[in-house]
Order: sequence, then structure tokens, then C-alpha cells
Amino acid sequence: MKLAMLGSGFIADFYTGALHGQRNRDRVHVVQSRSEDNLKSFCQRWNVPKWTTSMQEAIEDPEVEAVVIALPNHLHLEATLLAAKAGKPVLCTKPLGRNADEARQMLEAVEEAGIFHGYLEDLVYTPKTLKAVEAVQKGALGRILWARSRETHPGPHSDWFWTKSISGGGAILDLACHCIEIGRHYIGKDIKPVEVMCWADTLVKPIDAEDHAIGLVRYETGAVAQFEVSWAFRGGMDLRDEVCGTEGTIWNNHFLRTGFEMFTSGGKDGYVAEKAESNAGWLFPVGDEVNDLGYNHMFTDILTALENGTAPLETFYDGYVVNAIMDAALKSAQTKTWEPVDLAVWRGQELGGVQQHFTDYDADHYLVKEEVMPGGQTKIILKEKATGRMVQRVVNPQD
Amino acid sequence: MKLAMLGSGFIADFYTGALHGQRNRDRVHVVQSRSEDNLKSFCQRWNVPKWTTSMQEAIEDPEVEAVVIALPNHLHLEATLLAAKAGKPVLCTKPLGRNADEARQMLEAVEEAGIFHGYLEDLVYTPKTLKAVEAVQKGALGRILWARSRETHPGPHSDWFWTKSISGGGAILDLACHCIEIGRHYIGKDIKPVEVMCWADTLVKPIDAEDHAIGLVRYETGAVAQFEVSWAFRGGMDLRDEVCGTEGTIWNNHFLRTGFEMFTSGGKDGYVAEKAESNAGWLFPVGDEVNDLGYNHMFTDILTALENGTAPLETFYDGYVVNAIMDAALKSAQTKTWEPVDLAVWRGQELGGVQQHFTDYDADHYLVKEEVMPGGQTKIILKEKATGRMVQRVVNPQD
Amino acid sequence: MKLAMLGSGFIADFYTGALHGQRNRDRVHVVQSRSEDNLKSFCQRWNVPKWTTSMQEAIEDPEVEAVVIALPNHLHLEATLLAAKAGKPVLCTKPLGRNADEARQMLEAVEEAGIFHGYLEDLVYTPKTLKAVEAVQKGALGRILWARSRETHPGPHSDWFWTKSISGGGAILDLACHCIEIGRHYIGKDIKPVEVMCWADTLVKPIDAEDHAIGLVRYETGAVAQFEVSWAFRGGMDLRDEVCGTEGTIWNNHFLRTGFEMFTSGGKDGYVAEKAESNAGWLFPVGDEVNDLGYNHMFTDILTALENGTAPLETFYDGYVVNAIMDAALKSAQTKTWEPVDLAVWRGQELGGVQQHFTDYDADHYLVKEEVMPGGQTKIILKEKATGRMVQRVVNPQD
Amino acid sequence: MKLAMLGSGFIADFYTGALHGQRNRDRVHVVQSRSEDNLKSFCQRWNVPKWTTSMQEAIEDPEVEAVVIALPNHLHLEATLLAAKAGKPVLCTKPLGRNADEARQMLEAVEEAGIFHGYLEDLVYTPKTLKAVEAVQKGALGRILWARSRETHPGPHSDWFWTKSISGGGAILDLACHCIEIGRHYIGKDIKPVEVMCWADTLVKPIDAEDHAIGLVRYETGAVAQFEVSWAFRGGMDLRDEVCGTEGTIWNNHFLRTGFEMFTSGGKDGYVAEKAESNAGWLFPVGDEVNDLGYNHMFTDILTALENGTAPLETFYDGYVVNAIMDAALKSAQTKTWEPVDLAVWRGQELGGVQQHFTDYDADHYLVKEEVMPGGQTKIILKEKATGRMVQRVVNPQD
Repeated sequence: MKLAMLGSGFIADFYTGALHGQRNRDRVHVVQSRSEDNLKSFCQRWNVPKWTTSMQEAIEDPEVEAVVIALPNHLHLEATLLAAKAGKPVLCTKPLGRNADEARQMLEAVEEAGIFHGYLEDLVYTPKTLKAVEAVQKGALGRILWARSRETHPGPHSDWFWTKSISGGGAILDLACHCIEIGRHYIGKDIKPVEVMCWADTLVKPIDAEDHAIGLVRYETGAVAQFEVSWAFRGGMDLRDEVCGTEGTIWNNHFLRTGFEMFTSGGKDGYVAEKAESNAGWLFPVGDEVNDLGYNHMFTDILTALENGTAPLETFYDGYVVNAIMDAALKSAQTKTWEPVDLAVWRGQELGGVQQHFTDYDADHYLVKEEVMPGGQTKIILKEKATGRMVQRVVNPQD
Repeated sequence: MKLAMLGSGFIADFYTGALHGQRNRDRVHVVQSRSEDNLKSFCQRWNVPKWTTSMQEAIEDPEVEAVVIALPNHLHLEATLLAAKAGKPVLCTKPLGRNADEARQMLEAVEEAGIFHGYLEDLVYTPKTLKAVEAVQKGALGRILWARSRETHPGPHSDWFWTKSISGGGAILDLACHCIEIGRHYIGKDIKPVEVMCWADTLVKPIDAEDHAIGLVRYETGAVAQFEVSWAFRGGMDLRDEVCGTEGTIWNNHFLRTGFEMFTSGGKDGYVAEKAESNAGWLFPVGDEVNDLGYNHMFTDILTALENGTAPLETFYDGYVVNAIMDAALKSAQTKTWEPVDLAVWRGQELGGVQQHFTDYDADHYLVKEEVMPGGQTKIILKEKATGRMVQRVVNPQD
Repeated sequence: MKLAMLGSGFIADFYTGALHGQRNRDRVHVVQSRSEDNLKSFCQRWNVPKWTTSMQEAIEDPEVEAVVIALPNHLHLEATLLAAKAGKPVLCTKPLGRNADEARQMLEAVEEAGIFHGYLEDLVYTPKTLKAVEAVQKGALGRILWARSRETHPGPHSDWFWTKSISGGGAILDLACHCIEIGRHYIGKDIKPVEVMCWADTLVKPIDAEDHAIGLVRYETGAVAQFEVSWAFRGGMDLRDEVCGTEGTIWNNHFLRTGFEMFTSGGKDGYVAEKAESNAGWLFPVGDEVNDLGYNHMFTDILTALENGTAPLETFYDGYVVNAIMDAALKSAQTKTWEPVDLAVWRGQELGGVQQHFTDYDADHYLVKEEVMPGGQTKIILKEKATGRMVQRVVNPQD
Repeated sequence: MKLAMLGSGFIADFYTGALHGQRNRDRVHVVQSRSEDNLKSFCQRWNVPKWTTSMQEAIEDPEVEAVVIALPNHLHLEATLLAAKAGKPVLCTKPLGRNADEARQMLEAVEEAGIFHGYLEDLVYTPKTLKAVEAVQKGALGRILWARSRETHPGPHSDWFWTKSISGGGAILDLACHCIEIGRHYIGKDIKPVEVMCWADTLVKPIDAEDHAIGLVRYETGAVAQFEVSWAFRGGMDLRDEVCGTEGTIWNNHFLRTGFEMFTSGGKDGYVAEKAESNAGWLFPVGDEVNDLGYNHMFTDILTALENGTAPLETFYDGYVVNAIMDAALKSAQTKTWEPVDLAVWRGQELGGVQQHFTDYDADHYLVKEEVMPGGQTKIILKEKATGRMVQRVVNPQD
């Protein structure tokens, strides 16, 4: 498939690396950005036949079958409107908008134009996340109670990210968008996020936006998804998720501990490891970064869906929900209370409030805990429904 | 040293295991509890010469040099008052009280009586925590920004824990007391906890108190310490701490991943591992539980301090501060806003509010980020103090 | 690229999964095996247009651009000769032959026919191995001293593997071929393997061949590469490599500990994890097996080399060297002494014997060890070249 | 208990740290070494009341209840003979002798004198090893097949270790003694070691002895225990053991990955971590080195046995067996063949040769493998006893 790549920076490089990688049949046909110098080196680096500084020209190129938006956040809406106007399928990087209002305009534009849209949320496409979500959906963890997702690193590479008017915010806009969508996948994308509590602070970097945040997103099932983000982490990039349910737990580590461990004194000529903070000592590279971070599975899912006329795993609607949750988080960081998630458009289940789920032991008792003791006996703790009293029973194996 | 052990349950067993362990010179001289049956088997198990059902008798035993309170939470105050009356040194298990009010009464009682008091908060005494705190204090992590402490397991062993009137609460009273004190150690015990935001819910167990909670404790330096607790975790006991600063990070795992990994089909006669949820498959025992959970270092510090007439690392005052933070957490879970920590007695620093710490690059600029690029160049992102504008500079190695 | 797949079993499935995966442009055009039933289900599973029970027919299919041999070991030679006769490029699974003699016939056949040949040794193509080898080649580990590679699991899936006349051997033929080639990559593929010491035994399985083996392969640089294989390992598949040099070390874990950890009670309906020995307890799935085991990078390298007319990383020559080393290992297991590697064809360096490498401290001394002491002093241990005497010096930082 | 410590170097420090640690009741009463300076600082450091440069004086001190030999290897025999003459219980560090002959003289001396003797092999006393051995003895791993033990680090601290005439050898004498005894514990201390195959080389250090070695020790059950040692490892101290059986496996990591992970930029004043090769980057300290390396459990077992008049876990007899195995290893490194272990004194089982253990499926078949397939069917591979032919059966769950 022939693509227009809008943007020629860090993320456009990553995307093109995935698209042109392995034995793929997709190619970037034209690349667009503001800087001619960047464009020329990009075309050389990736063997791209055409470049232009005009978004419209790139989008309307007759050979282009789909448009990839890899631009700074403040240009996502404009690019989407142009693609919608041209009737071209559009794939947009994260976060979708700088806020839910912008994201909703983008969603409406693509839906009104009837064009295919994919949300480039790579981290829900990591092989580990896909496999974990599958296990959750098969019931391996039982009813989901908690999810937790962390992305922390020493801060973004480009200056525009640090300027709030362009990026729309700080570590939350940049990183929590990933964590929030991972949480939705574990808890269920059709489960409504109800309210958000968020702490955000500017502890290290001299910026207007936050460089640290922790947020709790509460869903209608009662489950809570936590996000943890930082632009001032030391030691590399910490990318970990967890999900707990009544029957199990999953711990995923995508970056710093994936089974590759190297100690080097630095070697004779100085060995430079990628994404490590130092060139010596213990280093923890990832084997295949582009695959392990989800780029391959993301483009496979979205471009194959486009070819097949089906829906991809992630659409602009998902991007909109994430923006709405981030809006609530940013508001909560100001008001210091839980803030409701304002979802004007909700397409999932309506449970109508949280329900409690206790386990019956028999007609008169709830089960609190059952435990095999060192001596082989089973200790059972029950709650009498009528009185609320706790009862402890010890059962011998031979009984 | 000869000790009176008040209580003969799970925690009394652990304490006595530590006290009588290795080549120790300390011994439990008398044990007290309500149940004669328990007392007899306890004395036999640990070779303890005397037992009684009377707290007072145990405390006033003339050979007893110090009293260890290993009783359910609702009896800590009563036992402390008896020890104070008898003028005997007293060591009390965690949490100190069921709330800050009770803890404060205990603190006042021991201070007015002028007796030695130690707070048996074992998890700040784990070898890994002690070493991590030492690294933090030596500056290895720079200025501390975040701390995180988790204790989750499938719920307590004894029925009294599940009854709120006796235990004073749920997973927060039982587990977060550990997490909170670990956070204080990392951030600085002399730094004032300002406010708490807490989510708590009863998701699984049919109890009046919470079985899950996540809380954020904000300190005067701006640092935040998170606690994460659950009584419904599957997979064993998850006991992990983290602390991040401007210069580094520490990850401690005390239980499920400590370098001992065993797969067993179950063997011929069924192999029973401790504290594992199953007898087969991959199991992760701890090498030396009593040492790795801090019991040895705790009693060494406290009993040696008692002998030397110095202060132990943890006193009733620390227990009181922890109770005050838990009170704020429980209130926040109800009011759904940040709640101030009500510390009528504060003996640490008074910073008078949070300060921001940005790093100067030169007189006119703050440093945002400095990064070595793959090509060997250094990219520097600065903020102009006067305008607030972001500036990006690339410096070649030869420059 | 259109391929003929010879074989429709376990490994043919894996290969086709990789070839047809992601957004790949390659396709299996025709599949061949003895069983019509297998062929039909294979074609359906992978959407393959044609099948045949005739090797020759598959190879000579005019649309077929290259032949993939995924057959039991005793058929590799025959299939290669047919491909050579047809002048078609050929890719052969591991091990190349049942012994060096067979491998050499295959090598000669393809070289005489002048056809492209690739050796499908997937494990040297795992992303972690590729990155580790790159680090080694850049000098990050200094001079290489040791390498170690392990593959152990509960035994192969198919019955033919257990029959020595068909497979050519046991765990060594099946697994050590991987380990040996990984060792060659770390030590240098142009470094001559000199001699092999091997223990092999049939400890568990009622078979003629070995189910366990440990071997040491000694190279001309003095470096030693160990292989460790078992067909009776419990706990999943253990796939780990290590390499040590004078300046560093690398530990690679490809399977059981790669950052994905799941505990499940089994769930309501029984959760079935792949390649795990149980459905409950702690499980350690791999995120993306086909990528993490090297299949993607292997076919990318080999098919791209074929298209570009260049040499792939692994050719039949490498397969031949591996077979020669395995022959020496099997012989050593019998003779219980080190056995020379009989390499009639050697195309790498000729060092002419092992040399010793000691580090000079000054003209009169070798450096034994230099160590910073807790007090900040540096302790230096030297050996006097003239006398062979050890000398210890302590240098203060201010000196 | 009051002890005489012979030696005041690195290992004497470690021992005294353990003996005087926690709330222990044991004390070093007198310390002996050649250097008055060392003795004075030792006494000050550890609060030891007496010192002497005379072994005999230390041993014969009337208050001394037991003698601890913490001297260079070439003095073990002399010290033992003096203790035997004085009739004092004696504890000797590892290795017992410089060779089996010396070890046997020591064994005979203590047995003839009828004195208590303990072999200070700390690493079989690590909490993880003790727990692992217990699991093995309870049958959790089934029949033991393999054991592996590694100790590698950048070389010993003291110069005498590098001089063969004093130490008796290189990395094997220093490190493999640990690994060999760990292997014996896993396979069974009453199982006879039959033969040894060993590779040893001097790859890095300018010394007469080996700085690297790998050895295989074969026991009468057919089980093999591997040792892996190096004096030139980079990255810290790698201390790992493994044991595999027909029903399971155990992986123990004692040092570099025990659940404590720290990244530091070095901090403002330079943070110095123990036993790390650098002061910055990722560091992996051990929580409680003296406990985790087995010193506490070792002295507890041996001194308590001495008090109780029972046998400790490790005696001079064990030291003698280890020396005999090392003698065979060193010989094998020369002869390049398997060398028999020459055990003039053997006090364990006599199996009279290795036996094979195959699992019956029914009267006519051995079981090769049983495996649940993705579709829920069970595939069973059998070997016909009469014909040796392999048979494959697929059983449906409903059958």
C-alpha cells in the first residue's frame, strides 16, 4: 500500500521503519513537512520517491492510498480535515487531539466524510499487551479489579513537546494517553470510565505543563486503572503494565527487563547503546524495538483492516475517549477532587452504576477466605449474611 | 534479654522465631493470650518456660525486661497502659493504634511514664530497605520525587482481622501502615506529610472495610509516596517498593522475585511450598523469610537500642504519624478529595510549603534536557527565563 | 516471492506463519508432503493454492522461485539434490545433514549447481542474538572468552524425531545444532573450532540416542563455547545464551523470562497457555513467538539476499561446520576424550594454535588485578615478569 | 561461645561479622595472624579482647572453646594439627586442603584426636540453597539429573591467592570447591562421584594456575554436576546454581539479581556501592550479604551442633571429598580425558554402577512423551519394548 507520511521527525522515522521493515509490501510514497532539509534526508534514509512541504499536495497525490499523520499535536485536526476533504483513509498518531473537543471534531470529520480511520496507539499493539488482553478476555484472570500502566523516561526528544500551546500539555498528553488506553483494553473498551482522580506536578523541568502525574480512572464495573507518567525518570525508559483480577494477575515489562542484559566496561572505542543513559555498566537493550513496541502489529492490523473493509482495533473514537479521560485528569489535578469523565458520545455498555460481587459459600454465608494450613487442614473464614458476623472453620483433610 | 510476649498467634510466632533464631541471646520468658490451648502449644513449640492468660501478670513478671505486644489491634492501648504502669519497656506491633487518637494516647502514656518504646514496623527493617534508604541518604538518587510501596496478598489468616471493630479497618490498617512508613523513610522522616488522596473499595470480600486501596501521600518537598494494598491478590504475596529521584531510581522486590525460582510437577507425594497458592508449577519461595522481611534487623536495632539507652529507628511517635496519615486516607476515600494530615504533634522540619527546583543552564536559561544523539552530537533543550520560550541547540563533539 | 514448502509438519507451520505474517509479500505457492490429509489441511490453514505429494513436482513448479526444505532430517539430502538439479534456490532447515558427510554432499551439490543456498538456523537470527553479536563485534565485551547456549524442553512433538535412523541422533542433532552456531557467532564464525569434549547420556527417555548432553567446543583463540541440551526438561522451554569477554558479559533469555508473567487460577473454563506445562499457576508466555525466535529476521535476511544477489548470514557452509562439530561431540561422548573437529573444508582464519594474552602493567610487570578498596585506595596486584613473583601495591587517591 | 580466630584477613572479617552480628551470643576471644598491624586494627574493628602472632597461643588460650581457621590454604594443615593436639574443636575455611592428600591428613588428625570438626563451606548454607536442597529431598524435583553451580568474579582480593604454592591452585581451588559441594548436596551427599571431565585454561591473568574452568562431575546415579568458575568475570560476582530432575527444576541466583535494582547517575559526591564494578548506572546490591551468602546459617548449624554434641551439616570429611574431586578435575584438565575420582575413604552408598530408569506405559511399551495438543487431544509417543519401534497415539478427551 502507498502512503503519505505527514511529518518527518522522530515518530515518522519509527513509523517508516515499521512500514518498510522485514518483507513488508507497504511503502511511504510521499513525505511532507515544513523543513526541506529534513525532507531530503528523510527521502534518502528511507528511499521515499517524493516529498513536499504542502500537506494538501501530499494527501491529494493520486497514488496515495492512505494518509499517516505523524505531526505535532496542534496540526492533527488540520491534517484530518484535509484528508476528510480528500476522502482519503487517515491514520493519526497519539494523542488524537490536544483535548476532547478537538478529538471530537476529528471524529466527526472522518465519520461525516465516511472515510476509514485508525488511531496509531502503538502500545496496545505490543505483542505482550495483545497476548495479555487475549488472556483477560478468555477469563484467565477472572473479574478485572485493577490495571496499572506506567511510562516514564527522561523526557521527549523534540522541543515542540515541551511547549504547551503546541503539544496541548505535558507528560499526561504525551504518555498517559498510552497508559489510559492500555487500561481500557484490560478493563474492557465497552466499559464506561466514570471518574478520574489525578495528581500532577512540575517537580523537575522548568515548564508550564506537568512533568509527573499519577491518575486513577474508575470504571462502571468498579475496576480502577492507574496511570503513572514522568518526564524525569533516570535509568532508561520504564514501560510496564499490570492487571489483576479475581483469578489471576499479569505483569508486563516492555523495556528495561526483557531478557537481554549486558555489562560492558565501555570497550576500547566506547560502545554506544541505544536509549541507555550510559555507555558502560549494566545495560538492558530491547531485542527488536519496532516490534516489541507494537509498531508492526499496529500497522498490520490497521492496513489489513483498511484492505478488508473491516474496523481496526483502534479508531478515532478510541482516541476521543482517551482525550476525554485526560481532560478529566487535568481538571482533577486542579480541583483536587475526583472529576467525572465527560463523554458526550458513548458507544459502549451502560451498566448504570457499580455493583458489588460477593461469593456465596452457602445460602447463609459469604466466603471470605479458604486456605490450606501447613498441617494439611483447610481454614475457612465465612461471613454470616444475616448477622454480618465472621466465622472461622477448620476442616481436616479426612473429614 | 528476657521478654514477655503478649499474644500467641501468627505474628507472635514470627516474632518468637526471629527472637529465638540463629545464635540469639534473647528469649521469650512468658507468653500471654486468652486461650490456654494456644498457650500450651506455643510454649512447647518455642520452649517458653511460662504462660499466663493475664496481661498484667506477664508484664509484671519480675524477670521480664521488656514487653512485646503481638495482640489484635483493639488491645494495643490497654497493653501499653499496663506496661507504662509497670514501667517496663514496650515494643508494639503495627499498626500502633486503630486510629491516630488511640496511637496518641499510647504515645503519651509511654512518654509520660518515661519508658523505652519501639514500633515493630518490620518492613522498614528489611535488609533491602535499609540499604536503599542508606543509598538515598547518601544522595545516590538525588532529590527524591516519588516513592511507591505495595503489599498485596490473598487476605489475612485470622478471623479477627476481617472484623472492623477489632482491627479498626481493612487493607489500609493492615497493610498500608507498612507502605506509608516505607514512603516516609525514602522521602525523609523529618519531612511533613501534608495531604492524602485515597481510593478504597470493597471489590471482592464480603466485609465492611475496604479490600483494595491506592493512596497518594504528598509531602512538603513536593514528593509523593504512593501505597497500593489488596486483600484479594492472586499469585502469592506481592511486596515491592520503588523510589525515584532526580539522579536515580531503586526497585526493591521482597517476595515473589528474589532469585529463587522452582518448577515442580508436584512430585510423587505432593510438595507443599509455603505461602504459594499452589503446590505445582512455577513457585517463588523466599530464601530466609524471617530475615528478608526485616524481623532480625528490627529486633537487633530495637533491643540493642534498649540495652544501650539510645533511640531505636522506629518509635511510637512513628506509629502515631502513620496512624494520622491513615486517618486522612480513610477520610479521603469518603470525601473523594485530598484530605490534610492532622498532626497535632509534629517533631520534624517545618518547610512552610512546597518549593520548586529548576536547574539553571546559565544566567538566562533553565536546562530542560540534554541528550547525546546517535550521531554523537549533543542536543540541548533550554527555556529562556525572560520569555518562557523553548530553545533547542545541537552541539557537535568537536565544538 | 513464491515458495515451495517441502514438508507440512510442525516446522513447516512455523515457517509459513513467518512467511505469511505481518504485511509480508512472500507466499507459499505449493506445499509437498507424503500425507494428502496433512496437505489439505495445511493448504486450508495457510491459504496455499497448490499441493503435491511429489518433491520433484513441487520444486519444478514454474512459478516457484525458491524451495524451503522443512522435512525430517533423512530427506534433506534428497531434496537438496532435486533442487540443485532444478537449479532452484534452496533454503534448508536445521540440522543441515545427519552428519558432516551428508552435509558436505549437500554443500557440494548446491555449489556445483551454482544455486543460492540458505541455512535456516533461526536462533542466530533472534533479535536479541543479532543485537548481542553486533555488540560483540563492536568490541563492547572485549576479547571473547566463553559462550554458553542452552536449549532444553520436554522433547520434540513428532515421533520421527525419536527414531535415530530418521533424525540421525538425539538431543544433540535436534538442539545442539542451534547452540553450536550461536557459539560460533559470539566467538567469530571465521575462528576455527579445534576440538570438542562432550558428555551425553540417555537418562530419562527409552531411546537409542541421548536425551541429555553438555559439550565444550574449543576454538583457536582459546575461547570455549558450551552447549547444554535436554529432551527431559520440566517447566517449559529454556532458551538462554551467555557470552563473556575481557570487558563485559551478555545474558540473553529468549523464552521463560522475557518480561511477561501471568498467574492464573485457571479461570472458569480452563485457560490454555501455549508451550506451558500447566494451565494454572505462574506462566511465562513469550510475546511474539515467531519474531522472538528469529523466524522473521531469518527469512528477511535470506530472501532479501536472494533478491539482491548477496550472501545471507547463514549458508549451507555454516550447516556443514555445525555438523562437523556435532560429529566430534558424538565421538567424544563415546571415547570420553577431547576429539578434534574434522573440517576437510575450512574457509576462515588459520591462527595456527592458541596464543596467550596477558596485560602489561609496565615493562617489568604484568597486571593481575586492580581494585578500588572501600577506603578509596587502589590495590594493584602485579606479577614480576622476570621472577614470576606476585607483588601487591596500595595506591592512595592523593598519590 | 568464645572462639579463636586464626587469620585476620578478608575471610576472617566476614566470619567475625557473622559471629558478632545481630543478637548473637558468640564472640571472637582472640585473633591470630602474622602481622601485628593487622591484628591491632582487627581487634579495634571487632572489639576483640586479645591478639597474638602465635597460632599455638591462640589455640591453647584456656577460655577458647573452639578454633576457626581463616588462614591461607597452605596453613590449614598446620593449624589443624595444633588444634588436634590441643584437643580443641576446629572449624576450617574452604578449601579444606590444597589437595586430597592434605585434606585426608587433616581428617585423620581430627578423627584420631576425637575432636569436633566443621567445614566452613558457606555456600551450601545460603538460605536459598538450604531451601532448595530441602525441596529436592522432599521429592519436588523427582529424580535428579543435572546440577550446575557457577561462581565467577574479577579475581580474589589478596595476593597470596594468586600464588599457586600457597593457595594450591587457581580458580578451581578457590571457587569450584563451593560449586562441587553444592552439586553434591543436590545429587545426594551419599552418592559416589565417579569421574570428572574438566577444561581449565589461563585466558586472562598472568598466573601459573587456571583463571577459568568448567568441569563435569559424574555420579553413580548417572547425574552430572557441572561447575563453572572464572577469575576474570566482568559485571560483579555471578553466583548461580541450578538443579533439574524428572519432575522439576530450581534456579537460584545469590548475587546479581536478587530483587534489588538501583540506577544512579553517581549522585553529587559519588556514591560507592559495594562489590560493584562501577559507581554509576544500574547496580544490583545484595540486601544482607552476610546472611544471603550463608555465613549466619553456617555458624548457627556448626556451633549449635558443637554445643549439642551432634554432627554439623558439613565436616572435614566433606572437605576431603571435595578435594578429591578437585584433584581429578585438575588431572583431567591435563590428560584431556575423564579421570576417576580417587576416594580412598568413601562413607556413602555403593550403587555399583549407573542404572537406567525408563518409565513403563504398559507391559509392552515405554512412555516417551505425553502432550496435550492445542485442540485438547493428547498425543502419546511410546516405544515398543520388543521391537524398539516408536508408536504415536492420539487420544481424544472424550475417549
